[in-house]
Amino acid sequence: MARWEPGTAERLQRAALELFTTRGFERTTATEIAESVGLTERTFFRHYSDKREVLFHGQDELVRTFLAGVDEAPPDASPIEVVAAALGSASSVFTDERRPHSRTRQAVIDENPALQERERHKLASIATAVTGALRARGVDELAATLAAETGVTVFAIAFTRWIREDEQRSLADIAADVLHELLTLTAAAQDSGRLPR
Amino acid sequence: MARWEPGTAERLQRAALELFTTRGFERTTATEIAESVGLTERTFFRHYSDKREVLFHGQDELVRTFLAGVDEAPPDASPIEVVAAALGSASSVFTDERRPHSRTRQAVIDENPALQERERHKLASIATAVTGALRARGVDELAATLAAETGVTVFAIAFTRWIREDEQRSLADIAADVLHELLTLTAAAQDSGRLPR
Repeated sequence: MARWEPGTAERLQRAALELFTTRGFERTTATEIAESVGLTERTFFRHYSDKREVLFHGQDELVRTFLAGVDEAPPDASPIEVVAAALGSASSVFTDERRPHSRTRQAVIDENPALQERERHKLASIATAVTGALRARGVDELAATLAAETGVTVFAIAFTRWIREDEQRSLADIAADVLHELLTLTAAAQDSGRLPR
Repeated sequence: MARWEPGTAERLQRAALELFTTRGFERTTATEIAESVGLTERTFFRHYSDKREVLFHGQDELVRTFLAGVDEAPPDASPIEVVAAALGSASSVFTDERRPHSRTRQAVIDENPALQERERHKLASIATAVTGALRARGVDELAATLAAETGVTVFAIAFTRWIREDEQRSLADIAADVLHELLTLTAAAQDSGRLPR
């Protein structure tokens, strides 16, 4: 078997998720993951720095898809419209085919506080990257930060709904609905005229 | 000296911040904190479970001030108005007198990734608590989650501005301004009519 056979990373990832689910994240070692698919620990560490990174290795790609969406937004788009474009771009990565994997991965994370912290860190990194991309478009610091953080909030809420067992809609559709709900909520507050100033 | 003399917790906190700032969080021990103000390690651990908790012991009180604001909002307040009330209530804890302490504390946190994770966890706990309080008022799950997360985003951004060296405004005023900026941004996006649906 060729050492760099395409698909080794994916095989390790599937094996890891299987073991994390049946045995628990804490009680699974990198060696066990590798051996469960006939590979060595050394091969494992050629692909992942540790067992936690099996769950987070797509993070850089996810950040890139958010930034690609920012780049594709029309030059005159307002900050929230830019963020909507970023959400559309990032959502497109999460195909229907990928939903069962995402669901299993999230179940592992939900069981482990350290993994939840790592997930929050991932979301914070996305917000920082999107803030930077908005700043580069000339958006002022406050608007850029608010729009980026709002985008990540919408993404996280939409993602949680997307992986529900009974959910059929695409992540892009759910994210668009969640963003619209936020616009409805903020419009209601503004129309009330009762906010402190 | 009486063992439970009021102010011991505060003395330990001041001593800890001083040492964290001059020596670094990692290189400071609980024993050193206690001894720097003539107290024993045992006294330290009567007040704090570890040195990290010196920086986070006000968390429960902060959650309570958010929830008190939710309780005080008029029954017919919309979710974002409820969150604005929670922001007003929580902000009032951070008096001008407390600003130098908050500034020093944040500088320690900004230097240490593990403390940043703990801070994100704190903010996530506030969002969870506020979501629950909104649900208890009859707000549906999506609106409650969005409004609560938005409130925490506004709080975090306002707090970062409040502790800037040249900032004079109160945290409540800054939070109100940041919330208004968000309403302006979302209104602009809605008015454009160009968001995907």
